[in-house]
Amino acid sequence: MDITLKPVATIRNSRIEATDDYWGEVITEITLEPHIPAEAFENIEKYSHLEIIFYFNKAESEQMVYSGRPRGNPDFPVMGIFCQRKKDRPNHLGLTTVELIAHNSRTIIVKGLDAIDGTPVLDIKPAVKEFEPRKEVMQPKWVADLMKDYWK
Amino acid sequence: MDITLKPVATIRNSRIEATDDYWGEVITEITLEPHIPAEAFENIEKYSHLEIIFYFNKAESEQMVYSGRPRGNPDFPVMGIFCQRKKDRPNHLGLTTVELIAHNSRTIIVKGLDAIDGTPVLDIKPAVKEFEPRKEVMQPKWVADLMKDYWK
Repeated sequence: MDITLKPVATIRNSRIEATDDYWGEVITEITLEPHIPAEAFENIEKYSHLEIIFYFNKAESEQMVYSGRPRGNPDFPVMGIFCQRKKDRPNHLGLTTVELIAHNSRTIIVKGLDAIDGTPVLDIKPAVKEFEPRKEVMQPKWVADLMKDYWK
Repeated sequence: MDITLKPVATIRNSRIEATDDYWGEVITEITLEPHIPAEAFENIEKYSHLEIIFYFNKAESEQMVYSGRPRGNPDFPVMGIFCQRKKDRPNHLGLTTVELIAHNSRTIIVKGLDAIDGTPVLDIKPAVKEFEPRKEVMQPKWVADLMKDYWK
């Protein structure tokens, strides 16, 4: 079964290359595509954070690698593709919770979106406390090492 | 631009109808589609929680409503479709963080997935602390009212 989606918005920011780190201070403009009316953002400023589902349109699609060491780092263990967040993954979906800075009609400004200029957005959802994990999140130790400069 | 995706897994659980509440105790089996090798789940048990991006294949697609009162409740304000999490939305994408209970080869068992039996899964990502909001999440008061029985 194929599922066909249409971008609902597009990302504009200063990041041209898909490099790994330093996303925390990036400011991004997200503007609705012409087929989505401005009312889709009505009252969005009532939330502090949004979940952005986007499409890694520059990701590798020739040969999918289903497991490997994150960032190719020999210090990290072999992890399945669904056990890491790298962009070269089946369906090329990205997902990040961002801070909402401003809303003006068809455009929102967000902070901390780890996607490059021109990236298509597939969905935007409000981050709500009731959808946070209801127990403590546990993860392998290497994740903190990989992420140490990510949000700087 | 159209984006074509293929389900990577399918959901099996006891929920046949897409009713609103009581998802907290639902146990769901997620099994990889035949074109995805089992190694995609390698070491997944190192995480406690996963983010599941799924496709609301039974959602309304005839006429999109871009803003409205959540659950049609007159006590709630009018909110744009990207300011609420209802299923009848552009691209029909669902997103929920679940607890990982078990992993066996091509199948994982999770708790708290608010999707019905047969729902296609488009991506699975590990929930990691570094992707949680770095400031407190603020949201409108009515959200707590809407969510009061959701995870029961």
